[in-house]
Amino acid sequence: MMEPLMDRPLRAGGSARERLTACFSLATLRACLPILGWLPRYNLTWLQMDVIAGATVGLTTVPQAWLMLRWLAYLYRPFQELPWSHGEQQQFGLCLSHAESSLISSDSYDLKYGLYSAFMGGFIYCIFGTSKDITLGPTAIMSLLCAAYIDGDPVYAVLLTFLCGVIQTTMAVLRLGFLLDFISYPVIKGFTCAAAVTIGFGQLKNLLGLKDIPHQFFLQVYYTFYRIPQARVGDVVLGLVCLTLLVSLTVMKRTLGPDSDELPVHVRAARGLVRGFATMRNALVVVAATVVAYSLEVSGHHTFTITGQTSQGLPPFQAPPFSETILNGTELSFSDIVLDLGGGLIVIPLMGLLESIAIAKAFASQNDYRIDGNQELFAIGLTNIMGSFVSAYPVTGSFGRTAVNSQTGVRTPAGGVVTGVLVLLSLAFLMPVFYYIPKASLAAVVICAVAPMFDLRVVPKFWRVRKLDLLPFLVTFLVCFWQVHYGIVGGVLVSMVMLLHGIARPKLKVSDHDVLVIELNSGLNFPAADYLSRVLYTDALQVSPPRSVVLDCHHVSSLDFTVVQEISDLLRQFQLRNAGLVFCGLSHSVLEVLLAADLSGLKHTESVEAALQTLSELHFTEGPDQAKPLLGR
Amino acid sequence: MMEPLMDRPLRAGGSARERLTACFSLATLRACLPILGWLPRYNLTWLQMDVIAGATVGLTTVPQAWLMLRWLAYLYRPFQELPWSHGEQQQFGLCLSHAESSLISSDSYDLKYGLYSAFMGGFIYCIFGTSKDITLGPTAIMSLLCAAYIDGDPVYAVLLTFLCGVIQTTMAVLRLGFLLDFISYPVIKGFTCAAAVTIGFGQLKNLLGLKDIPHQFFLQVYYTFYRIPQARVGDVVLGLVCLTLLVSLTVMKRTLGPDSDELPVHVRAARGLVRGFATMRNALVVVAATVVAYSLEVSGHHTFTITGQTSQGLPPFQAPPFSETILNGTELSFSDIVLDLGGGLIVIPLMGLLESIAIAKAFASQNDYRIDGNQELFAIGLTNIMGSFVSAYPVTGSFGRTAVNSQTGVRTPAGGVVTGVLVLLSLAFLMPVFYYIPKASLAAVVICAVAPMFDLRVVPKFWRVRKLDLLPFLVTFLVCFWQVHYGIVGGVLVSMVMLLHGIARPKLKVSDHDVLVIELNSGLNFPAADYLSRVLYTDALQVSPPRSVVLDCHHVSSLDFTVVQEISDLLRQFQLRNAGLVFCGLSHSVLEVLLAADLSGLKHTESVEAALQTLSELHFTEGPDQAKPLLGR
Repeated sequence: MMEPLMDRPLRAGGSARERLTACFSLATLRACLPILGWLPRYNLTWLQMDVIAGATVGLTTVPQAWLMLRWLAYLYRPFQELPWSHGEQQQFGLCLSHAESSLISSDSYDLKYGLYSAFMGGFIYCIFGTSKDITLGPTAIMSLLCAAYIDGDPVYAVLLTFLCGVIQTTMAVLRLGFLLDFISYPVIKGFTCAAAVTIGFGQLKNLLGLKDIPHQFFLQVYYTFYRIPQARVGDVVLGLVCLTLLVSLTVMKRTLGPDSDELPVHVRAARGLVRGFATMRNALVVVAATVVAYSLEVSGHHTFTITGQTSQGLPPFQAPPFSETILNGTELSFSDIVLDLGGGLIVIPLMGLLESIAIAKAFASQNDYRIDGNQELFAIGLTNIMGSFVSAYPVTGSFGRTAVNSQTGVRTPAGGVVTGVLVLLSLAFLMPVFYYIPKASLAAVVICAVAPMFDLRVVPKFWRVRKLDLLPFLVTFLVCFWQVHYGIVGGVLVSMVMLLHGIARPKLKVSDHDVLVIELNSGLNFPAADYLSRVLYTDALQVSPPRSVVLDCHHVSSLDFTVVQEISDLLRQFQLRNAGLVFCGLSHSVLEVLLAADLSGLKHTESVEAALQTLSELHFTEGPDQAKPLLGR
Repeated sequence: MMEPLMDRPLRAGGSARERLTACFSLATLRACLPILGWLPRYNLTWLQMDVIAGATVGLTTVPQAWLMLRWLAYLYRPFQELPWSHGEQQQFGLCLSHAESSLISSDSYDLKYGLYSAFMGGFIYCIFGTSKDITLGPTAIMSLLCAAYIDGDPVYAVLLTFLCGVIQTTMAVLRLGFLLDFISYPVIKGFTCAAAVTIGFGQLKNLLGLKDIPHQFFLQVYYTFYRIPQARVGDVVLGLVCLTLLVSLTVMKRTLGPDSDELPVHVRAARGLVRGFATMRNALVVVAATVVAYSLEVSGHHTFTITGQTSQGLPPFQAPPFSETILNGTELSFSDIVLDLGGGLIVIPLMGLLESIAIAKAFASQNDYRIDGNQELFAIGLTNIMGSFVSAYPVTGSFGRTAVNSQTGVRTPAGGVVTGVLVLLSLAFLMPVFYYIPKASLAAVVICAVAPMFDLRVVPKFWRVRKLDLLPFLVTFLVCFWQVHYGIVGGVLVSMVMLLHGIARPKLKVSDHDVLVIELNSGLNFPAADYLSRVLYTDALQVSPPRSVVLDCHHVSSLDFTVVQEISDLLRQFQLRNAGLVFCGLSHSVLEVLLAADLSGLKHTESVEAALQTLSELHFTEGPDQAKPLLGR
């Protein structure tokens, strides 16, 4: 009655023709172009939400990308060429390790490249991405990582972006996305909580109007508190007003009961107004603050710290350069540059992925939808390849902007298109507008967006469900304060060691029934072979007289050669000591493997009872006290 | 009738008192001092075999260690100070990468240190080791690895040995030996075959009397064949005679039938003689060759290439130095030296272990006994700690000498004591004897010992039993020709990826019975959570109308938090779509975890039939066409 309909691994295989057909089926097309999944259902409500969210993210992207690039440029130019104060130089010097400071070369890197990175993400990701929330773009961590490899050379930067994209796309085509499944939930949670703290805290300096705060988290905490007396009253007041507005609008929206037709019209209108304001709160707050700042600035009052001068102009669309002529006239070939980039070609693509996927997974879990690892890989890779055509540098997910996007209520990846358009417009025309955005209002928006991500309610949950999972959580959480990517890698390693220990030491249930009956509680893989063998030696072979064993393999679904070899050794040892070893509950595929190995003396039965019966019969024929060694195989 | 006697993981725990008692039980003492397992049963036959094997290994150790150290010293001294010909220098220069050549400093390193390494291994390992065959001592790979870190400074070398021992012992105490279980059988086999080829081929130059052959395998092959015209007739003849003798004695012993009393006395005596000669063949051949060489040398005929001058004198027994005053009078503290050693403190202990364990496992599998990973770690660590007291450098297992030891028929680790005594004696008095050992005879012994290890019969076995296991075998085999430790690491990585892929993509058996019944064929760990969820989405939730699912978890023995979180998401999604999700066959511990997680809508039954019953009842009450969304948790 219950026939197997399909065996999944087989389904993935099938004949070459079936596979070819599957390649071009509608489902595959939809998997490769996730936009086909949501575009047909796109409606006005979604558009409205996407435009609001996209515009809000755009408002934060332009100033953030610009500030980041100003800092990146700082790494490239000699100190004296920069329009920074001596204090700023000292401050940044603090957070530059001696390795980084060696990068400061005389080459210049155009500030616009950061914004170029920001707009391509939205367009490409909209078509190929599977997460509605994530916003790809330039991030501080990526800038710093890249700086270590491109050595201030724009050609290197663009080529790194291109190769990074090629490597990521190749990984996607090779279906290596399954490796991302090894980022466990505790690691994601640890990363999210730590990122919320560091990013939220990182905005505190803008809320207080402080300058020259270093980038490294611990130094940032120290200097932010140390400089509190220097806080600017205007920024603090504006920041607090924005924060209060944002929080109260959120609370009002949440406490608003469901609409019903029984309510009077004016009540319903007021409710609609509150709901509308609450939805657009992020954009409203930034725009309102900008208007106030503009009025004050033009009347000569520099009350707030504003974004200030940003660069302007659209990038040319051109293929990335594959060679370069350097100062002394030497031609650097493609292979020279690749050799120079070296380890960067491993570190940058992997770190970019790791952070993007961690963010995408965190928001997918928060908002109840699924992402597809391979497709995400592909979308990020393609964004980088296309980005290299507009002189961008490698993108990754930005935690802060993704939080703003998600919290403003984005519905589809189309929000990214709005952000992209806004970035393009701002590059072309809007820069004067961005000039007057007060930093404190942006800080308030980012702080409100990341605050809900700092959710320590998981800790008692871990405690209740599986205490051991607190370990990867804590490792990730704590190490992320030092370096985000080390935190993720550390957490993954801890989860892996825990997983592997379970595989190497499967639980065995030993029961005594004249002979020993040993039940394997899970599968049997090569790391467990030695352990199983040792247990059988200790409990059955090294006691006097040696005991017979029934090995219950109901839960074993596959065997590798190491295990087969160990079983072959065990069978010989049991024969030598005149004890019986009978397997029971072998599945069809496992039995096939054992028979193919041609093991002498292999006995197997359906059930434990049948195995016990077989053993007692064997002892009858051999005689229990005869103890004649059965030599040879 | 079949009550569980003991649950293994619980047994390992128990009350603090039980654990304390277990710590001091006789079994634990025997596990910590494996010598207690075999010493009481020691007899004259074993002694005879151990002495023959130990002496044979001793005869090969002294010249080998000396040659190795001569080469190591070559790395330390400036070219002109060395008593090597210009040809030799050029030749060695070929196999030194530019990294290594930068190590050649003006400090000198006493040649005796290699022999000091050789004798401590035998004594310590005899008490603590669990492999009868392995011989610890100086090896070419270890010498090269160490040279990269100690920079020609004896204080660094001795301290590296000490710290390497401390790290290995600590790993043993922390029971990290389980990590060694991840070296699978295909990796061991690939390593064994490659090592047999490289070591066997490495002796060919001695058999042919060739000089100045580089160390790197591929260069060695090229130069050995290139220089065949320069072969020395004396060495070739002696080598071939030795080889013929060794092979024919082995064949004679193997074809000798069993003794029986019916045979005449003289036949039995002849058989006994053959058996005796065959057992002692290695030592006999070397001693006979040495006698011939001595006679020829004293009569002025330099027919054979002989071992030549070796150093003499016993090392002082003293604690390793923990600081050093260098040339310009600066005091280098312990922490300075540790910082200088840097990565060496990770690479040297791990590589030393990896090779030792791989060799021990290979010979244990060959000779049907078991080694204990943690105990091996402990024995090697202690050997290194004690070695640092006699100015030795870090030891590891030597494949060639272990093969000679095993093939000469060693019975217990006591063979190592004989080797150790012989090395000590040779350091004190016997050097003149070693002077005359012809290299070709040693080469014949080593070639005969490693030849049986090159056993490609495993390849068809892999093909028959599990074709996929050919991959780690081939990776290890091929990469080992480049660098042995990269080969082992590469093979382990390939096996790991295969293992992890199986964990991330467990086999699901989907059958259709009005509702979908999905059976998990193995355990469910966090890397599989996303995959399971995706399958349920594709097959049950994204079809129209959504289908109910019975998840058969008979084979699941534990759950981690990631899986629980995914199940919680799934339950919510099934409720939203008004479809049922019922678990069946949950074990007690798994059910406890799920209940602790307080999942809303969790339904579980004993069997698939009961689950189907539950689902049909639910549909009855809700009505199949009502399709009212069940919102909220």
